[in-house]
Amino acid sequence: MPDPMALTVVGSIAFDAVRTPFGERERQLGGSAVHFALAASFFTDVRVVGPVGDDFGDEEFAILAGHGVETADIERVEGGQTFFWRGHYEHDLNVAHTDDTQLNVFADFEPKISAEAAASDLLFLGNIQPDLQRQVRAEATGAKFAALDSMNLWIDIARDGLCAAISEVDCVLLNDAEIRMLTEEPNLILAARKLMELGPSTVVAKRGEYGAALFTRTGHFALPALLLEEVRDPTGAGDSFAGGFLGYLDSLGHYDPDLGDLRRAMVYGSTMASFNVEDFGTERVRSLSRDEVEARLEDFRELTRFE
Amino acid sequence: MPDPMALTVVGSIAFDAVRTPFGERERQLGGSAVHFALAASFFTDVRVVGPVGDDFGDEEFAILAGHGVETADIERVEGGQTFFWRGHYEHDLNVAHTDDTQLNVFADFEPKISAEAAASDLLFLGNIQPDLQRQVRAEATGAKFAALDSMNLWIDIARDGLCAAISEVDCVLLNDAEIRMLTEEPNLILAARKLMELGPSTVVAKRGEYGAALFTRTGHFALPALLLEEVRDPTGAGDSFAGGFLGYLDSLGHYDPDLGDLRRAMVYGSTMASFNVEDFGTERVRSLSRDEVEARLEDFRELTRFE
Repeated sequence: MPDPMALTVVGSIAFDAVRTPFGERERQLGGSAVHFALAASFFTDVRVVGPVGDDFGDEEFAILAGHGVETADIERVEGGQTFFWRGHYEHDLNVAHTDDTQLNVFADFEPKISAEAAASDLLFLGNIQPDLQRQVRAEATGAKFAALDSMNLWIDIARDGLCAAISEVDCVLLNDAEIRMLTEEPNLILAARKLMELGPSTVVAKRGEYGAALFTRTGHFALPALLLEEVRDPTGAGDSFAGGFLGYLDSLGHYDPDLGDLRRAMVYGSTMASFNVEDFGTERVRSLSRDEVEARLEDFRELTRFE
Repeated sequence: MPDPMALTVVGSIAFDAVRTPFGERERQLGGSAVHFALAASFFTDVRVVGPVGDDFGDEEFAILAGHGVETADIERVEGGQTFFWRGHYEHDLNVAHTDDTQLNVFADFEPKISAEAAASDLLFLGNIQPDLQRQVRAEATGAKFAALDSMNLWIDIARDGLCAAISEVDCVLLNDAEIRMLTEEPNLILAARKLMELGPSTVVAKRGEYGAALFTRTGHFALPALLLEEVRDPTGAGDSFAGGFLGYLDSLGHYDPDLGDLRRAMVYGSTMASFNVEDFGTERVRSLSRDEVEARLEDFRELTRFE
């Protein structure tokens, strides 16, 4: 057995109000760090860093703790309200329509990295302001592998900071449209190469219902998303992908993944994303068993094999 | 050896003027039947049915004949002009912008099916008016397997005719957005099932740069598109896909393909589409060798394998 692995994620913890053609929820647990942590918890020990308000109660802590997620670094702001997002999806579930965003305690979030978090082997910087990502990266001195996510907002208003943050991590996970937008390069291979020239060894292009593609200096990998009869709410799918991807990598116990390791990590990421979208918020992932995760790996094998 | 196979395609034969961020051509050989036939010619004997004008000359016939494509059923209309399409692509090569369409001899096209064409084992009905597709299907009495393509125009103005045409073929190839539009069902599995309820045993969802998915009553298959550094002109990629897909099926010499046959056909379809987009019009496919086709099959294996 390798030494105990540990993965720290920094990101948003939220309550979401979501409506899709298949139902709605007025207040469900969400946020990038939550979706990530629950997905990663099937593979390794996860620690969440992020802010919540007084309204984040025992029930929510229990959901995380029930999956073995370490919540000691969740900062509870007295008198504050938890980040809140309201959105809806039309029949094209690839497009989220935001109706309301209340940053609340997230507006003044200054990540505090405990000694335990700083000692984590693997670090995931969820989609927060790039300068905060850089600050966390610098403080997480034990991290042997660091990855980040971002979004079009930061490409628009903080491009230089985002490029600097990217130069300091090993792996970037972004939507394919964001990769093209950030690099101003329409060809995805060339765009990924531009990102690798900034420093990272690995680029993951998330492609929503179409799956995901992986780029390294030695090769590529692409995987379609599972074809599902039930897709009820895509919120958090990208974070669940990242959780499965990095959770699996952390479980390897070494931090120099080869292309074979990364291919398997892509399948685990896609697996966790596929569960995520089958029900609202964290509902499906919360009730998963590890056996179901492994069975879905076989579904991917069956979907993609040819002779 | 099975008996000699034969595949007939009915569709457009065109001159295209195309501009992309990577260059332009003022007059290149194109049309659905041409792209299809050249791709299929790597696998089987192909016969083209379609109209051209006086301006379609020896050079164009020679390109087809040079690939063994039977051109005896190409109808040359005296005093007519060949179908002409002018379009361009911006950086998003998934979206074709039409600048000019001159139907010319295609406007009054009434397919004449020779005895040889009617005796073909496999029939591909390219994107033409659905009632014409039905007429050809009825006349092609020897066809043991028939497939069709269509487009949003016919879904808009001839939905009932298109549904009737679909009910008379074994296989439908459409873009995923068209499948959703035609069935009014956003979930792709359920939408494909609706099409199969009309009659076809096989539905192929073309997904552009994201690849393609296959649906049958016994299982699904999905394949990402090859990640290419050179993508110069996507015109005709869907038809090249269909040509590789159906050309390979025809080469099997039986017309009851199982899921394994169809999976391999999808890889050959994707292979031919990947070559199509690497250069303008038919330029890349025209100069291909069969060895290059087989080598690209290995590229797909390398892109998609995981253990």
